Amino acid sequence: MALVNECFLSLPGNYLFSEINKKVNTFSLQHPDAKLIRMGIGDVTKPLAKAVIDAMHQAVVEMSDAKTFRGYGPEQGYRFLIEKIIEIDFRSRGVTVQPEEVFISDGCKSDMGNIGGLFAKENVVAVTDPVYPVYVDSNVMDGRGGGTSASGMWKNIVYLPCIKENDFIPALPEKPVDIIYLCFPNNPTGTTLTKPELKKWVDYALETGALILFDAAYEAFIAEEDVPHSIFEIEGAENCAIEFRSFSKTAGFTGIRCGYTVVPKKVAARTGTGKKIFLNALWNRRQTTKFNGVSYITQRAAEAVYSDEGMRQCKENIAYYMKNAAIVRDGLKHMGLEAFGGINAPYIWFKTPENIDSWTFFDRMLKEIHVIGTPGVGFGPSGEGCLRLTAFGSREDTVAAMERFQSWSI
Amino acid sequence: MALVNECFLSLPGNYLFSEINKKVNTFSLQHPDAKLIRMGIGDVTKPLAKAVIDAMHQAVVEMSDAKTFRGYGPEQGYRFLIEKIIEIDFRSRGVTVQPEEVFISDGCKSDMGNIGGLFAKENVVAVTDPVYPVYVDSNVMDGRGGGTSASGMWKNIVYLPCIKENDFIPALPEKPVDIIYLCFPNNPTGTTLTKPELKKWVDYALETGALILFDAAYEAFIAEEDVPHSIFEIEGAENCAIEFRSFSKTAGFTGIRCGYTVVPKKVAARTGTGKKIFLNALWNRRQTTKFNGVSYITQRAAEAVYSDEGMRQCKENIAYYMKNAAIVRDGLKHMGLEAFGGINAPYIWFKTPENIDSWTFFDRMLKEIHVIGTPGVGFGPSGEGCLRLTAFGSREDTVAAMERFQSWSI
Repeated sequence: MALVNECFLSLPGNYLFSEINKKVNTFSLQHPDAKLIRMGIGDVTKPLAKAVIDAMHQAVVEMSDAKTFRGYGPEQGYRFLIEKIIEIDFRSRGVTVQPEEVFISDGCKSDMGNIGGLFAKENVVAVTDPVYPVYVDSNVMDGRGGGTSASGMWKNIVYLPCIKENDFIPALPEKPVDIIYLCFPNNPTGTTLTKPELKKWVDYALETGALILFDAAYEAFIAEEDVPHSIFEIEGAENCAIEFRSFSKTAGFTGIRCGYTVVPKKVAARTGTGKKIFLNALWNRRQTTKFNGVSYITQRAAEAVYSDEGMRQCKENIAYYMKNAAIVRDGLKHMGLEAFGGINAPYIWFKTPENIDSWTFFDRMLKEIHVIGTPGVGFGPSGEGCLRLTAFGSREDTVAAMERFQSWSI
Repeated sequence: MALVNECFLSLPGNYLFSEINKKVNTFSLQHPDAKLIRMGIGDVTKPLAKAVIDAMHQAVVEMSDAKTFRGYGPEQGYRFLIEKIIEIDFRSRGVTVQPEEVFISDGCKSDMGNIGGLFAKENVVAVTDPVYPVYVDSNVMDGRGGGTSASGMWKNIVYLPCIKENDFIPALPEKPVDIIYLCFPNNPTGTTLTKPELKKWVDYALETGALILFDAAYEAFIAEEDVPHSIFEIEGAENCAIEFRSFSKTAGFTGIRCGYTVVPKKVAARTGTGKKIFLNALWNRRQTTKFNGVSYITQRAAEAVYSDEGMRQCKENIAYYMKNAAIVRDGLKHMGLEAFGGINAPYIWFKTPENIDSWTFFDRMLKEIHVIGTPGVGFGPSGEGCLRLTAFGSREDTVAAMERFQSWSI
């Protein structure tokens, strides 16, 4: 008789964004005339850069002719893309990455979700709180949750609060942890760490043998100096960290699906008897067994992001979104709300007035001003009483949303 | 200190096809003038159908304009594609499938590799032998291998021989099993089951509570009557089976990446206390957490496979490959070799002369006639002394390979 992985059963039934979708769809059906402004899910709205479009047309043409047709590519990705990544994303920042350390994938979410398969169930996982739900949910599926306490927190997961009171800078864990998820610039708070702050984490990992899973999906939005774009800018990180990158927000690839993961050859974990096992070979074995590479057309699209034209066009789009971010941040502050982020990241995090809880405020925003945010508590207990807004809408919608906020008697 | 999943360490270092690639690359470097004919990896060579190419150009155009741009799609896939699948692949064969039962993915390999995450470590897995290595390797990663015996077989995995002596029809397992992988038309042997033969498996699963994971990646190559295209053509299968499909071979999508999985709402597994858990919801939770959907452009390409033009063009390509299959099969038989498959599947399975072992014969083929096959033993112990050839080459190469065989003094 087939037996299920019972870890699934302890998970809440819905992924956060599916839950939001359901609420919004229900409201839309009941109020078909309401003009909703969506600042909830972090999905881009600007079309793909022309350089990317041209590259895809060209790749489609290649696929139409037996002489240039491409079938199975390397599971790890094509060298033409890997070499651009190394040159532009790393070498230009003084970081050395080898081609065999880069694995192209269909997106950061897949890799961050699947990486857990490489590790023993017994690892203690630490996450910043609030946090992108995939880190927690995927670990619960893998058996590292340990059941929830009355507060809804997972007993075996260590939560590191990132809140206004600590300037959104997580403190090192008080009890030993084995795997640490860090995402900077941060989703959902939009805040960042400076190099010295990130260095504390690398030093901690080197000292304790912990592994850092570093989500750098938003690095392209960094505007300030001294904010690291890659954890590998920190000395020693190549011995203790894996980095995840995405083209979703950098180049508007949310509907195209491409990202990559850097697993340095030196980074290792241990067996129960203390033997060092290098993770690059393990991830390679995982990817070659359970994955079959990314569409050739998509990889040519990603390559075009690194052309001069592509980089210029993507930067223009990012600048557009970051102007939206400033409008949102300033608008909320002007109302007297406490707002964070939006400077090095496309997310603005704000506290509800009078400590209204996140879902109540989400519902009120939806019903009263028809603006969709994301309830902070959906990202973890430290997010209660906050909401996340994204800067990925059109300028017109962003301005209109802020006007609705201003004229709203909360 | 981060601890690895030690199940990985018991796996052979290389995935079968990576191993073959390495051998071939080494030979090529040493013999740059040798004109290799590749009949090893099952990769297609014909370009994409015009209907598919046109659909992709159109989708790329849509992605270039904010009004038609698509960002995140549903993780489960777009309805426009799901509805075509239901209509053409199932309804036309008298099978009822609901839209929520279909999950679009980046390929059958990913889904077959990832589905194991839904199940407890304690399940006893049965595979036909020889078998597509992904089924075994992914279960070993998930902890269901139990170490290898002297023969190289995994102690906790039940092997069901499919050999000449039983007409490649696996016998029901002698000891109870919980999860059964079936692939028909079969990779690697190219053989099939008739409806009454497949019904025995469905009946067994219904009786014992076992789950069948049915890989139907090659259904488009079926030429004979009474060979089921879908396991759901068998009464009751919707209560005990999950089916995996791929566009890779059907439509030449090996470089495009698209497949789908049908998880009927009625199919369930059990908790340790015997509670029924429906797998559709679990797979949905897995996919929404660890996957982010397939490229919009790819899904439009897959939709075009179901257009009248697309179906006609794909069928032409399949007929072309199946003519190759007949050439290979006849060529081998003409030499006095025992050859199987190649009638309802693009694979031909043959026994080496004088029981030469698979890898020795692989090496000799490579070195002496420059033809690349796949060693049967790479698919499992029952494959020893056999090789697989694929029909996916060009006509010219296929004919040339057979000429080399004919003039070869083995």
